[in-house]
Amino acid sequence: MSGEDGFKNVAIIGLGLLGASLAMSLKNKKIRRLGWTRRAEVRQKLLTDGVIDETADDPETLLSKAELTVICLPVQEIIRFCSEHVHAWKKGAVVSDVGSVKGIIDSALTGLFAPRGVDFIGAHPMAGTEKSGPEAAFPELYENAPVFICPDKSSSPDNLLKLRRFWEQLNTVVMELPASDHDMLVARTSHVPHVVSLALTLSVLDCPTEEETNRRYYGCAGGFRDTSRITSSSPQMWRQIIEQNKGAVLEALKSFQHYLDRTKNMIENDEYDKIENEFATGRRERDLWLAKRYPKKG
Amino acid sequence: MSGEDGFKNVAIIGLGLLGASLAMSLKNKKIRRLGWTRRAEVRQKLLTDGVIDETADDPETLLSKAELTVICLPVQEIIRFCSEHVHAWKKGAVVSDVGSVKGIIDSALTGLFAPRGVDFIGAHPMAGTEKSGPEAAFPELYENAPVFICPDKSSSPDNLLKLRRFWEQLNTVVMELPASDHDMLVARTSHVPHVVSLALTLSVLDCPTEEETNRRYYGCAGGFRDTSRITSSSPQMWRQIIEQNKGAVLEALKSFQHYLDRTKNMIENDEYDKIENEFATGRRERDLWLAKRYPKKG
Repeated sequence: MSGEDGFKNVAIIGLGLLGASLAMSLKNKKIRRLGWTRRAEVRQKLLTDGVIDETADDPETLLSKAELTVICLPVQEIIRFCSEHVHAWKKGAVVSDVGSVKGIIDSALTGLFAPRGVDFIGAHPMAGTEKSGPEAAFPELYENAPVFICPDKSSSPDNLLKLRRFWEQLNTVVMELPASDHDMLVARTSHVPHVVSLALTLSVLDCPTEEETNRRYYGCAGGFRDTSRITSSSPQMWRQIIEQNKGAVLEALKSFQHYLDRTKNMIENDEYDKIENEFATGRRERDLWLAKRYPKKG
Repeated sequence: MSGEDGFKNVAIIGLGLLGASLAMSLKNKKIRRLGWTRRAEVRQKLLTDGVIDETADDPETLLSKAELTVICLPVQEIIRFCSEHVHAWKKGAVVSDVGSVKGIIDSALTGLFAPRGVDFIGAHPMAGTEKSGPEAAFPELYENAPVFICPDKSSSPDNLLKLRRFWEQLNTVVMELPASDHDMLVARTSHVPHVVSLALTLSVLDCPTEEETNRRYYGCAGGFRDTSRITSSSPQMWRQIIEQNKGAVLEALKSFQHYLDRTKNMIENDEYDKIENEFATGRRERDLWLAKRYPKKG
């Protein structure tokens, strides 16, 4: 589904790494890209550079023309922007986003869009780099990225299909699932790894004496470097993510604890055959995942 | 201290990655390298290639000539080799090793060497790659590697100094500490990260249904890839390491659990300022470690 039978006018709100890359990737797809971001000089530059086809000082000028709006802002700002501008969309418009936690957005916006005939369908493309801002944007950012789309009971099947096709034309892998399942999924696959990596880093480096600190510095090698890498992420961002997904993070932590306790009990009971088997299972499952998720890298 | 005032004849037992690399790095250091490994054809090839200066069918021929012997075998085989050949060393000889767990070796060999006037001083150079065997060996393997030396009360200060200088001539960073401190250190910095990485991998990928497996496959990205990487290590090797260092691993797991529980409690109590602070501390401490341990990589 190209621009002909899909969305012809797409508003992109927020032109940082995610928004500007989305605009770049939509070039030459028969889609008019209506771009808005807070800073006027950025809007003008991206218009001049051909990253967007149209901009305006007031975002509502663009929202009123768009069949699809993709809000590329942090989670709290998505909620704020939609609440502030909800009256600007025309009836029949579809509003979506790129927020990394979905339940809190759904809860905040429930009852806001539906009475106005606007269809809000949350989405989360898992793409990004360690950089941010429009200067870090590039058109291939979404290539092969998973995109989770989280419809609710009120979502129109036709709009859902059009949103799916919209993302699929960028060579993404689209999966539909309820917002609560999505949040549990990312709690397991991303949020708990960050919490675990943090605890591991502190248990190794939070150290009483200088002599022992020096020993630990040298006792850490490649294994620690990799397991602790994501501890170097933004503290502000992770504070927000954990707050926004509290319930699912605590639930996923329980699951991690179950497996940790199981291995700990094996060690306490000298069940070394079982431990070897546990490591072999972990290696096999990780290798299967790696082969499917990163087929080119092997 | 070069060959002149240090060890002149050094026996290297086991010529895999660690042993053959050690032999290569000792070339042109006025040290006669007496090399032995189980397979005769490997001994002959390494002699022909100039990796060792002398070999023999019977390792005891070499042990009787060596002022220093470095046993480059897995932990259980170090114990077996020393027990079998203890009578072969001459009085005054120094025996060391490269085993990654030290307490179990000390316990097994206590009372074996001392009555014969042989000084056993355990060591653990933290060097290696994911490969093994003499074909993977290279002379720079030990460059900048930490080497932990674990003397006990009976170790001669003179021999200890000579062993320290022996490793330092290879541009390693030598640290002395008791065997029990060493084992607790590596439990924290290496063994517990492996156990935690395993539990994390299983909690994400050990999955009830095919549909959910597919979602989790796509829900995992770079953060999971790095934190789970060491789960792909050898199950046999890690079974042995955990068995050999059981007490310290359980103790270090307690410390990890302390930090994990602390963060979990903050989440349960909505203490998000504290969580942000915890992440900031983790990042700061990891960045300090990284700058000291890998100064060139930044």
